[in-house]
Amino acid sequence: MTTAAAPFAHIAVLGVGLIGGSLARALKRANEQVTITGYGDREDSLRRAVELGVIDRYLLDLRQAVAAADAVVLAAPPAAVPPLLRRLAGALQPHCVVTDVASVKSPVVAAARAALGEHFPMFVPAHPIAGTEKNGVEASFAQLFEQRTVILTPAAETSPAARDGVAAMWRSTGAAVVELTAEHHDQVLAATSHLPHVLAYALVDCLARMQDRKEIFAYAAGGFADFTRIASSSPEMWRDVCLANPAPILAALDDFEQHLQEVRSAVAAHDGPRLLTIFSRARQARDRFIGTGD
Amino acid sequence: MTTAAAPFAHIAVLGVGLIGGSLARALKRANEQVTITGYGDREDSLRRAVELGVIDRYLLDLRQAVAAADAVVLAAPPAAVPPLLRRLAGALQPHCVVTDVASVKSPVVAAARAALGEHFPMFVPAHPIAGTEKNGVEASFAQLFEQRTVILTPAAETSPAARDGVAAMWRSTGAAVVELTAEHHDQVLAATSHLPHVLAYALVDCLARMQDRKEIFAYAAGGFADFTRIASSSPEMWRDVCLANPAPILAALDDFEQHLQEVRSAVAAHDGPRLLTIFSRARQARDRFIGTGD
Repeated sequence: MTTAAAPFAHIAVLGVGLIGGSLARALKRANEQVTITGYGDREDSLRRAVELGVIDRYLLDLRQAVAAADAVVLAAPPAAVPPLLRRLAGALQPHCVVTDVASVKSPVVAAARAALGEHFPMFVPAHPIAGTEKNGVEASFAQLFEQRTVILTPAAETSPAARDGVAAMWRSTGAAVVELTAEHHDQVLAATSHLPHVLAYALVDCLARMQDRKEIFAYAAGGFADFTRIASSSPEMWRDVCLANPAPILAALDDFEQHLQEVRSAVAAHDGPRLLTIFSRARQARDRFIGTGD
Repeated sequence: MTTAAAPFAHIAVLGVGLIGGSLARALKRANEQVTITGYGDREDSLRRAVELGVIDRYLLDLRQAVAAADAVVLAAPPAAVPPLLRRLAGALQPHCVVTDVASVKSPVVAAARAALGEHFPMFVPAHPIAGTEKNGVEASFAQLFEQRTVILTPAAETSPAARDGVAAMWRSTGAAVVELTAEHHDQVLAATSHLPHVLAYALVDCLARMQDRKEIFAYAAGGFADFTRIASSSPEMWRDVCLANPAPILAALDDFEQHLQEVRSAVAAHDGPRLLTIFSRARQARDRFIGTGD
């Protein structure tokens, strides 16, 4: 029943939106034998997920939805995850692996440790670094994780077998799997993801409140659309990220503001060589790390 | 010889890079009768522009290059424009229109007024809001200005006929043409273009100097690539923009920093409702002004 590429025969996906739906599609593409049960709090959305062939069935009772599962994927919004974890306790088969997709790991690990008790070693915290600014099962697609990275942040107690199962599941979607500690993950993502979102939201809000905002947006170029695309992401999700990861975000923000002050001083002092140094270093770093043809 | 769509029979393009080259290509596409003479300080690049069919010929002597021109387009880097303007004085036919493509207008207008003397009414300041993060004639293409906006910033003295000629020239490339005062242009562009570039450069430089920069860039998602794409733009060009437009950029930066402090306080205070308000307002503004399908 289980292979390296598709270790779980029956998977329960809790929250069938963009991420949960795309994972379900990708798992079915990798292994048409897999059974996927959906669970969520909006029946219309779950019914749509069945119609679209994303999941095989749905159940509105959480304990029933997970009863036969070899793996449970928590793909609900971050704020919904701790209560779900508490309700899972005692409802799972002993061999059932639990994993999640939250973009901040330390709070999920703490919540799982508190909620799952003896079952905690079967919990494998995971964060697929993928997404679009769209939401919902209608936006899901099987290719979302291809050539993306999934970061696992296992705890000291995490079962190596459970970890390997979750890693194999993600690899079967086309993703690369790496490991970090939860704390390090949260610091790295604060810098690369949470901080840019905060900046994009702050910039668009700033411009939208200027007096000549109509002209401002009318004359915005392609670079502006690119730069601010992430400000079209879900405000609820990013509020939750900010609430879940405040210390690393504030640290990254402080660091950024120092750099911005440096640029500000150079502009104010009409310091061309200093501006050229900073801009060149940034361009070089981006081209080196991200590539020029992205 | 001249039509509404192609008012100039002989155009001299000073600086045949991405913008000058793309304009030349677009003008030739619109009117195959047009003669385009290139001028620049790198003969290999000018020779390549002739090989690519971007220009008809080039001359290394500025006064010869513009002698027969009905219009001269200053498409050299901003810092090179004031000296070019001074060297144009006395070399132009009386009816010759002069225009430019600089992304900061007030200093160019001042330089043209000082350099051109009696010919100043024939100077039509223009800014095509288009570009890519690439440079050079090899990157030029005739479609660059299609469905883009070109902002003209005529002065009180500017000849209406000269202005109409430059407007018609740009419309023949597929662009829409609007008018603003130079001062207003520089404020609006500081907010929509210069500030985002400064932020992107500052962010990438900030991350590139963090200790775990390898992991930081390795785990950057698609949103980060979008957000920082403009940090791959020419450092020299953006240094020049910052030097040319310091006051509006500093004003936009101060405004932005206030907004960022607001977000920072909300994160520090764990203020979910406040974060949701700011993020929702930003998302709404972006979707309304820029569109959701960009």
